[in-house]
Amino acid sequence: MKKNDRPARLRALAHEVVETYEQIGGINKIGDKTLPSQPAIVEVLQKLLTVVFPGYYGKQVPARANLEVLVASRVDDIFLQLSDIVDKTLHFCHNEPCQCSVLWVPEENGTRQGDFTRVAEQIAMDYLERLPEIRQILKTDVQAAYEGDPAAVSQDEVILCYPGTFAIAVYRLAHPLHRLGVPLVPRIMTEWAHHRTGVDIHPGARIGPYFFIDHGTGVVIGETTEIGERVKLYQGVTLGALSFPRNPDGTLVKGGKRHPTLEDEVTIYANATILGGETVIGRGAVIGGGAWVTSSVPAGARVLMQAVTAT
Amino acid sequence: MKKNDRPARLRALAHEVVETYEQIGGINKIGDKTLPSQPAIVEVLQKLLTVVFPGYYGKQVPARANLEVLVASRVDDIFLQLSDIVDKTLHFCHNEPCQCSVLWVPEENGTRQGDFTRVAEQIAMDYLERLPEIRQILKTDVQAAYEGDPAAVSQDEVILCYPGTFAIAVYRLAHPLHRLGVPLVPRIMTEWAHHRTGVDIHPGARIGPYFFIDHGTGVVIGETTEIGERVKLYQGVTLGALSFPRNPDGTLVKGGKRHPTLEDEVTIYANATILGGETVIGRGAVIGGGAWVTSSVPAGARVLMQAVTAT
Amino acid sequence: MKKNDRPARLRALAHEVVETYEQIGGINKIGDKTLPSQPAIVEVLQKLLTVVFPGYYGKQVPARANLEVLVASRVDDIFLQLSDIVDKTLHFCHNEPCQCSVLWVPEENGTRQGDFTRVAEQIAMDYLERLPEIRQILKTDVQAAYEGDPAAVSQDEVILCYPGTFAIAVYRLAHPLHRLGVPLVPRIMTEWAHHRTGVDIHPGARIGPYFFIDHGTGVVIGETTEIGERVKLYQGVTLGALSFPRNPDGTLVKGGKRHPTLEDEVTIYANATILGGETVIGRGAVIGGGAWVTSSVPAGARVLMQAVTAT
Amino acid sequence: MKKNDRPARLRALAHEVVETYEQIGGINKIGDKTLPSQPAIVEVLQKLLTVVFPGYYGKQVPARANLEVLVASRVDDIFLQLSDIVDKTLHFCHNEPCQCSVLWVPEENGTRQGDFTRVAEQIAMDYLERLPEIRQILKTDVQAAYEGDPAAVSQDEVILCYPGTFAIAVYRLAHPLHRLGVPLVPRIMTEWAHHRTGVDIHPGARIGPYFFIDHGTGVVIGETTEIGERVKLYQGVTLGALSFPRNPDGTLVKGGKRHPTLEDEVTIYANATILGGETVIGRGAVIGGGAWVTSSVPAGARVLMQAVTAT
Amino acid sequence: MKKNDRPARLRALAHEVVETYEQIGGINKIGDKTLPSQPAIVEVLQKLLTVVFPGYYGKQVPARANLEVLVASRVDDIFLQLSDIVDKTLHFCHNEPCQCSVLWVPEENGTRQGDFTRVAEQIAMDYLERLPEIRQILKTDVQAAYEGDPAAVSQDEVILCYPGTFAIAVYRLAHPLHRLGVPLVPRIMTEWAHHRTGVDIHPGARIGPYFFIDHGTGVVIGETTEIGERVKLYQGVTLGALSFPRNPDGTLVKGGKRHPTLEDEVTIYANATILGGETVIGRGAVIGGGAWVTSSVPAGARVLMQAVTAT
Amino acid sequence: MKKNDRPARLRALAHEVVETYEQIGGINKIGDKTLPSQPAIVEVLQKLLTVVFPGYYGKQVPARANLEVLVASRVDDIFLQLSDIVDKTLHFCHNEPCQCSVLWVPEENGTRQGDFTRVAEQIAMDYLERLPEIRQILKTDVQAAYEGDPAAVSQDEVILCYPGTFAIAVYRLAHPLHRLGVPLVPRIMTEWAHHRTGVDIHPGARIGPYFFIDHGTGVVIGETTEIGERVKLYQGVTLGALSFPRNPDGTLVKGGKRHPTLEDEVTIYANATILGGETVIGRGAVIGGGAWVTSSVPAGARVLMQAVTAT
Repeated sequence: MKKNDRPARLRALAHEVVETYEQIGGINKIGDKTLPSQPAIVEVLQKLLTVVFPGYYGKQVPARANLEVLVASRVDDIFLQLSDIVDKTLHFCHNEPCQCSVLWVPEENGTRQGDFTRVAEQIAMDYLERLPEIRQILKTDVQAAYEGDPAAVSQDEVILCYPGTFAIAVYRLAHPLHRLGVPLVPRIMTEWAHHRTGVDIHPGARIGPYFFIDHGTGVVIGETTEIGERVKLYQGVTLGALSFPRNPDGTLVKGGKRHPTLEDEVTIYANATILGGETVIGRGAVIGGGAWVTSSVPAGARVLMQAVTAT
Repeated sequence: MKKNDRPARLRALAHEVVETYEQIGGINKIGDKTLPSQPAIVEVLQKLLTVVFPGYYGKQVPARANLEVLVASRVDDIFLQLSDIVDKTLHFCHNEPCQCSVLWVPEENGTRQGDFTRVAEQIAMDYLERLPEIRQILKTDVQAAYEGDPAAVSQDEVILCYPGTFAIAVYRLAHPLHRLGVPLVPRIMTEWAHHRTGVDIHPGARIGPYFFIDHGTGVVIGETTEIGERVKLYQGVTLGALSFPRNPDGTLVKGGKRHPTLEDEVTIYANATILGGETVIGRGAVIGGGAWVTSSVPAGARVLMQAVTAT
Repeated sequence: MKKNDRPARLRALAHEVVETYEQIGGINKIGDKTLPSQPAIVEVLQKLLTVVFPGYYGKQVPARANLEVLVASRVDDIFLQLSDIVDKTLHFCHNEPCQCSVLWVPEENGTRQGDFTRVAEQIAMDYLERLPEIRQILKTDVQAAYEGDPAAVSQDEVILCYPGTFAIAVYRLAHPLHRLGVPLVPRIMTEWAHHRTGVDIHPGARIGPYFFIDHGTGVVIGETTEIGERVKLYQGVTLGALSFPRNPDGTLVKGGKRHPTLEDEVTIYANATILGGETVIGRGAVIGGGAWVTSSVPAGARVLMQAVTAT
Repeated sequence: MKKNDRPARLRALAHEVVETYEQIGGINKIGDKTLPSQPAIVEVLQKLLTVVFPGYYGKQVPARANLEVLVASRVDDIFLQLSDIVDKTLHFCHNEPCQCSVLWVPEENGTRQGDFTRVAEQIAMDYLERLPEIRQILKTDVQAAYEGDPAAVSQDEVILCYPGTFAIAVYRLAHPLHRLGVPLVPRIMTEWAHHRTGVDIHPGARIGPYFFIDHGTGVVIGETTEIGERVKLYQGVTLGALSFPRNPDGTLVKGGKRHPTLEDEVTIYANATILGGETVIGRGAVIGGGAWVTSSVPAGARVLMQAVTAT
Repeated sequence: MKKNDRPARLRALAHEVVETYEQIGGINKIGDKTLPSQPAIVEVLQKLLTVVFPGYYGKQVPARANLEVLVASRVDDIFLQLSDIVDKTLHFCHNEPCQCSVLWVPEENGTRQGDFTRVAEQIAMDYLERLPEIRQILKTDVQAAYEGDPAAVSQDEVILCYPGTFAIAVYRLAHPLHRLGVPLVPRIMTEWAHHRTGVDIHPGARIGPYFFIDHGTGVVIGETTEIGERVKLYQGVTLGALSFPRNPDGTLVKGGKRHPTLEDEVTIYANATILGGETVIGRGAVIGGGAWVTSSVPAGARVLMQAVTAT
Repeated sequence: MKKNDRPARLRALAHEVVETYEQIGGINKIGDKTLPSQPAIVEVLQKLLTVVFPGYYGKQVPARANLEVLVASRVDDIFLQLSDIVDKTLHFCHNEPCQCSVLWVPEENGTRQGDFTRVAEQIAMDYLERLPEIRQILKTDVQAAYEGDPAAVSQDEVILCYPGTFAIAVYRLAHPLHRLGVPLVPRIMTEWAHHRTGVDIHPGARIGPYFFIDHGTGVVIGETTEIGERVKLYQGVTLGALSFPRNPDGTLVKGGKRHPTLEDEVTIYANATILGGETVIGRGAVIGGGAWVTSSVPAGARVLMQAVTAT
């Protein structure tokens, strides 16, 4: 082929690329069945934020607004969009050889797998009915930030400027969806918050009220983490896995408790790393910045990295 | 309630959510008085960037442009938007039981609190007149990055691609607004830069010229930090508080010097943590990566974490 | 000047700012020759992502689509935009006293420097012809994430939700452009991924297949890093420089191997820092979280930071 | 002045233009009190169209939607926007030496002029309560088009494709606002429809049900026109004024019946012109295309222009 | 009801409006089956314009573009969108008691009505294969304008500035779709052109090559009009129906030739009206401005309205 | 070809369409030299409207705005955009075998044709310096509408709602550009106004102050029309050509006075048609609606169409 034969080279290239679509599986998504788009999921999430933090997210809520009509309309709108998203996701996962399909089948109800639309609507309705409860817990998280940071001048500042609180709010909204067995969607929600804040909370984690993450960049909270009440984390804290058991065929065992447990009133300073599913940080313990913890710590203990000194 | 009575359930839910608006205070913002929106503040910030880095941010500035007219028009436009934003913020904070209202009242001038619009215009004007000085110092920050990183091939690359320099530029623009006592607005500016770069600089910090942050993700610089000239930080460095004194009623004491002081020509490598309001890192000291420093370090010292070795 | 003479003060300010444009060089970009805009570069990058991950990025690809026409059209479109971007960049760098101009001149072909457009088209074509190969390696990166994380439920989730894999994909697309000697453009690409994910990979690094970065926030991979196959990094890992040799005039030596080498199957846990151009982490070695490594580690070694214990 | 002294010439020009702002009144609108913007008014109009033609305008209305919540929310939203628009308009007209201020003062209620906000809300509420009635009459207009045009294949086609019916619908929505004495706003609404369809119906005209305008371009229906039931107009028909009486000072008398009256079941063919406030076209009369009518026509008459023949 | 009980009044209003949705049929479109949206149809039309007038509509076509790839991609894209639009339209019309469903069933092929998707794809393909032919005839229309108007300075001006030529082009693209029996879609296309230009050409009309409409506002060309070659119309010309025969039940007879026939080289000046399905304007005849013609005119005749003179 | 071989048919179609690009000239615009886009021209026009009607078009102009800076910036911006547009247009027309190239060469200045950029800047500057004068005349047009229409309640309503006045304003801005010899651009401006209002004024017409067009749809004012002061037109009025002299080769003679002359204070009612370059309507004459005038009318005459009467 002559070097400067551009049309021919581009044509050949297109042909070659399409061949890789046929030969290399798993990274192509060609066909009429699709996942709900990330923007659609983020749109629902943003509408949920306008319901739980009215007036801070979305448009101003003037005093003259008829709140009950406003909320009813938002909730109805979210119901329609969310049940569509869940419906599409269930359809998508069912026919693929992926593991997520097992998550959502509520076998105890004897639901037939094909009846996705009805299941999706039921999930969306059950989910939405948790919103009042989510608001209760969000209130405690905002208070925890306001009370826990001397630099915070108002609760407004916390809601508008604290990335840790934002990431927690998204987690609070994504977690019940995860518990209802919806695949992918809650993960896309928390990953969007990760992108915006640098705080990566897996929607599967279980976290008590009055939770505060300051600054936040680099925080990682793994899928099977359990966190009590009034816990406080600083930037760069990892709550991670220590090792991954393997199946006889060498593949990793999916599932299982792999991430630590933090009891009430634990504080963990910047860049500390706590690893392991059996690691329990006892009530009121304080873990110093940069610490590396792979085994349990008793209640009330103070684990501090030795401060370095000048040479 | 029958499970499939969707309209009734959604109506009941809306009712219940609205009840939480009445019962749970502090996380609702319903009414006709509003804070300036985050997009409005970011818009002003972006216009300020087009003034201090002409041609890099905003539209191309062609050689034929009449620079004085262009700048005059931008500055006038910024003046109008910024004084509106400050005006709204002062109004907002005045009537709320929040702590920020004390910040902006220049009592020594005998200003009456109600005269917000005039105060706002005066603040906006005073602020804008610092722009030439801000440009002087920004020039030193760009030079510090170009000279301090062997991978930097041009000052263009620094301005266009270095997130640390971007976060510093936003801090340089937000800091004078903070000093003029404007609540919330400078914080929203630096938090926007935090979101974009992972570098969290509180607008209250005081930082000298020739400041360089390389890579930047995870850097945290607290409100009362003081930094001299020609200081260099790497990613993940925390300049934070060590402990929070409490009031007799158990609430945190707001204010007070809580974050460290870095003298001229200090270098701090990746993921080091320096804590405490009385901690002073002396001129020319070098703090190694991952170090944990909670007390002062003399000038010229090298504080290195012991490198681990293989087991 | 009277305090309330606003128009006069703003006029004076504009004049003063324009004076700083004349006095302070290097941070103004005024004139008719311009760099390609960051949005234009990101647009090309996003089109490249739709080619290598069809259906995940960009619009749905329905089963009825004529794949070869679709890809040919996308590739043709990218060719036109990319060759324009490269052309502008070469023009820009040629006349400025910057160091990047030396990078792109393929002296072995005896190309005259002025012949930018032809060179740009040749570079764009050569680059695009690497796309099939890039897809081959991307497939291995997706597999590495799916197989390496017990929380991953499907390859879809990896492509849609894993920021580390996203940052690697952008690096895979930027690196060949860097090797072809295009200044600035690949750096703007990876910096965009840094902004979105907190993962900062310099386009000059050399990285083998099956590469996995989990969570990712705070990872830094320097320009002269070399990484083998099946390497796995966690959040906050730095692969950086140890010290910077200086020229006789005190300026830093640009270029030279300054960052470490990781052999095949190395694993590095969260927040570890590996520094130095002569530091080699041997095949299969495991570096523990928070470790600080400045010298080579033998194959198979396990370097662990001593876990702290309660006091 | 030297020809090529561009900055000076542009500066001088700006100065001269600003001088004309001071010297030439009536075509400048500089100041803090403003009229509601045309886009804001069109937005309300489009929301009204989604209420009266659900599913044709605005988003799809899925079968699962909770209609009562949907409509309540739309109506509440329109109420807030419309009362703001009316409020601004009343404020604006009150302080200007314009004639519209007399229109809106419902003197019989003894309303004080200053109480604009309350009046605006009352007007908006009274207006909205006419929506069910407006829908009743719109239904007759759609039927008239479907039954009156052999080319119409469905009522869907009428609503989606008939510009005459669109212009009538906008008139139906603007007219009650005009009757409630709101200045400017209804006129901006019908002028928007004029722009889109070429059909210019003044919001002051009084028009009975089953009204059909076919094709429509060029139709003009003046402010004081009265039209009965089942009237049909073709493109280019003018219902205009014949002459304008003047005040003693030579200015035109504003107000007074100047446009014709059409009784029930009148048909007027293309490009006919009917002029004069005392001109009455009697029940069932047919006016031929291109006719010029300046005096009354008895019921049942057929007024035809003599068809020309070949020479 | 108390006057100022706003929430109650708005709630009652919403209830009342929803009742009209149930009571007043034919102007509501509530449910999951929907017509293709007008924007989607206009988007396809605009893509068709980029194919038939490359470089004038849509993006610039640079000399380096690979035309065959570009066109193949556009055509493929149009095929997918158009067949979806036709598919939706056929589904929609089938289940509604509307008359359009009879149009598209190609009974001679024995197609089952349910097989919409396949029929839609066949129609889209057949339609697209007429594009080369459409371009041939469009070329003659552009030439007719350039040669027929002394004010036209170039063919570029004709394509870019002549609304008559624009309306003809849209008709040329809509007509074959109408002939293939697609309901509503071609009508929405020509109505969009009507909205933009004031020229209302029904897609059912049959029009020969070298057709020119100057200025155009107010032109109406009815569904069953037939026009020969090299015909020229000015603004405001109506080619309409004279009377509408009725069925025994009083409804209009739909269908039937109702509009005139114009033989080759006819010219009709501004605002003339030609009516009736049996009216034939013979070859080369000239109809003067404002004329009213309801019977045939022989070839070569000149029909002029008598010019009025001063009184 | 098999009927269902879609990819092959689409490929063949693309090939065939591209062949027509080669065979059918004059309706393709492929290559790197391009006309300025219609949106770019409309953008400049809209900026011009914000200068001549400050506060009505574009953003609100608050009382605190620094008018001279605001106008200077707008004018500078317009200068840059307009001189680019003119430059591109001159380049474009120069190398094409089109007639417009002769228009712009100011031979009396001895300008070399190649020096487009300088000529374009000179034209843009000369044009802008006419803005104060354009504002003077626009003021008279607004007054003419307010004084001439009994339905007009304020000058605000005239500027915001009168399409005739809008079309006149665009003509006022386009005409000086036409006189300076710029091809195509002024035509695109007035055609945009035609699209929005149905009023088609050729930029070449010469029109005196105090000009009013009421309603406006269907008005056509030809290229060589001359109109005095205080003239008033109603909708559907044509000021057109009577016949087109031909060159010996049968092509139309381009140029020459072909449209009528209206002296001061002429009024022409709806749908009247005045034709011919030698037709002069004398001072103060009144032409009745629907009249057809092809020869001169003396000053003060009243030309009325005989009103039809019932049969």
